[in-house]
Amino acid sequence: MAAEVESVEALIDEFVPADNLKDLKRLLYGAELPSLNLSNEAKLFAQEKDIELKGYIFSAASESTRSPKIVRIGGVQNKIVLPTTAPILAQRDALHKRIADIIKCAALSGVNVICMQEAWTMPFAFCTREKQPWCEFAESAENGATTKFLQELAHQYNMVIVSPILEREEERWDVIQNTAVVISNSGEVIGISRKNHIPRVGDFNESTYYMEGNTGHRVFDTQFGKIAVNICYGRHHPQNWMLYGINGADIVFNPSATVGALSEPLWPIEARNAAIANSYFTVAINRVGTEEFPNEFTSADGKPAHKDFGHFYGSSYVAGPDGSRTPGLSRTRDGLIIAEVDLNLNRQIKDKWGFRMTQRLDLYAKELNDVLKPDWKPNIIRE
Amino acid sequence: MAAEVESVEALIDEFVPADNLKDLKRLLYGAELPSLNLSNEAKLFAQEKDIELKGYIFSAASESTRSPKIVRIGGVQNKIVLPTTAPILAQRDALHKRIADIIKCAALSGVNVICMQEAWTMPFAFCTREKQPWCEFAESAENGATTKFLQELAHQYNMVIVSPILEREEERWDVIQNTAVVISNSGEVIGISRKNHIPRVGDFNESTYYMEGNTGHRVFDTQFGKIAVNICYGRHHPQNWMLYGINGADIVFNPSATVGALSEPLWPIEARNAAIANSYFTVAINRVGTEEFPNEFTSADGKPAHKDFGHFYGSSYVAGPDGSRTPGLSRTRDGLIIAEVDLNLNRQIKDKWGFRMTQRLDLYAKELNDVLKPDWKPNIIRE
Repeated sequence: MAAEVESVEALIDEFVPADNLKDLKRLLYGAELPSLNLSNEAKLFAQEKDIELKGYIFSAASESTRSPKIVRIGGVQNKIVLPTTAPILAQRDALHKRIADIIKCAALSGVNVICMQEAWTMPFAFCTREKQPWCEFAESAENGATTKFLQELAHQYNMVIVSPILEREEERWDVIQNTAVVISNSGEVIGISRKNHIPRVGDFNESTYYMEGNTGHRVFDTQFGKIAVNICYGRHHPQNWMLYGINGADIVFNPSATVGALSEPLWPIEARNAAIANSYFTVAINRVGTEEFPNEFTSADGKPAHKDFGHFYGSSYVAGPDGSRTPGLSRTRDGLIIAEVDLNLNRQIKDKWGFRMTQRLDLYAKELNDVLKPDWKPNIIRE
Repeated sequence: MAAEVESVEALIDEFVPADNLKDLKRLLYGAELPSLNLSNEAKLFAQEKDIELKGYIFSAASESTRSPKIVRIGGVQNKIVLPTTAPILAQRDALHKRIADIIKCAALSGVNVICMQEAWTMPFAFCTREKQPWCEFAESAENGATTKFLQELAHQYNMVIVSPILEREEERWDVIQNTAVVISNSGEVIGISRKNHIPRVGDFNESTYYMEGNTGHRVFDTQFGKIAVNICYGRHHPQNWMLYGINGADIVFNPSATVGALSEPLWPIEARNAAIANSYFTVAINRVGTEEFPNEFTSADGKPAHKDFGHFYGSSYVAGPDGSRTPGLSRTRDGLIIAEVDLNLNRQIKDKWGFRMTQRLDLYAKELNDVLKPDWKPNIIRE
């Protein structure tokens, strides 16, 4: 098997001369964002623990009536630690330990709000279509071991932690959900946000496990800005991103788990477009590595049964409301992407571009209502 | 003044070795689309007339119950021909002549549906805020000289032509509109589609000239597929793209006129995201060159008055529903981008990804209705 390409950035940095690289990065990324000065302690710890650590700065103009609102946001991408054949609790605890290190690295880097990848306490087992043992990874959002574990870290590091897990609704018929738990820097659970759009793609029909979320488009008002969570497949739906913006989000995290040729052409586009269209920051987070399962399964693509879903290509990044974005993390390594952002940029871009002023919500509310009527016909003009 | 960069493609083609270029193009463009074999006659004519001519192929799988629906679509980018101080009709006629050449080049290349840039019969004078003489470029959509001129070409070349002009509604109080006229390959006008979202950005508040369009999200059923037109600033509004898709568009043209640092970071993202989110093809078209006006004007950016709006960076491209896209045309030259597409790809991608099935329009109709109520409050969760 050919080695995975490291990243777009590695390729262009290697071959394009410095003068031209500046132009190229402006055209590809909107701007070459300055790197964030991270502490030596953070850098050494990252090196010791084999964590790719990258930080960038999105700045804003200074204003007369508002102080800057500087926040450091982080996205975590990681491989699973133990093989999928290890006991469930051992797999989970090994991931807890790994994430504890990455969150410590974030704390050493001054991160205020952090988010892990989708279903971070487990392998992405939904491709197998087996219920057992994978459903055993599901936990109570409010009282599960993972939430308790993170509440301590959140309080210890004064950090808001967004924890996307497989949720078991213990008091509501044992239903399973795909849920992000938002934990305040005080250590309290502020609330939960569920995945609004569920893929029914051949080899990952996740509605085998959970249905469309029922928590709408909540925004969580934290000490470090208003945040929202658009889980994985929800990034393909611009109207989903839009409603988080309508409710006032400053930062929307997109914890994901996505592989290979199918989604990689979409990856650099969707979360960046959402940041542009909604005048907020987005953090696109994908897991890394290849996960092998004990039993073979098919991928609804005519190919023979196999034991892995493909390569999760990482490439996590942060995008800003002005169309600029950070380079991506690697396609192969565990990593932490950090952006120091001035949230004032969001309103400055709103004032500049006026997308909220010109959005004509009345037109769209009316047209969508019409579409739902049983006698709706598409608006087609024929010669 | 430094020379304008030619294009992203020119930069990476120059420096990145062939082996790595393949990976890089896959990561940047989703796929390295094969080039379209164009006739020597077309190539020679393009060379003679200094038209950058590029063609690519988007293919689809063969099906048992449907024949391929192969269509060649074209997008035109061009500079104005005469100085803005020339008589209005002379400026317009010179553009007619130039476009006649480019459409001839398209005909020699087998193009079935073509679209010009926004307000193609005139300089982009809306930055000046002067009404005269620029409003004199406005014409009747149905009976104006430009429409008549193109009806002949459409019939002659058996080509659907989308013509974005400044429209004068002669029978409706002489109101001005920003309008695309859709002309059938029979030579008949099928209908018009107006710009739905009007920029109110500092130096191009186009509501000085025209207001939000009143033609909704029409789709035109032509012999070469169902097409729609999302004019310029409408590309910043994902809900606008969405409604063209809801009404069944196969191909959405985005005729634009946009400059420099403000919008270039957004350019490669928005039309491509729309193609992905809506499972259709998009054609992003921008004018090229710098247009100097007789009187100086300011750009609401604190800088001294000047006589040009900036450099229109071209970079027109076509994007497909699978996330792939063509390279862009140059940032500096007149050009014609052609894509031979199999429209069957749209439904194949719908079946693969299921975005229409999972879009939850009922949820969004309800949430948008709620937003419009006077007592609406954002959905914010506080600790």
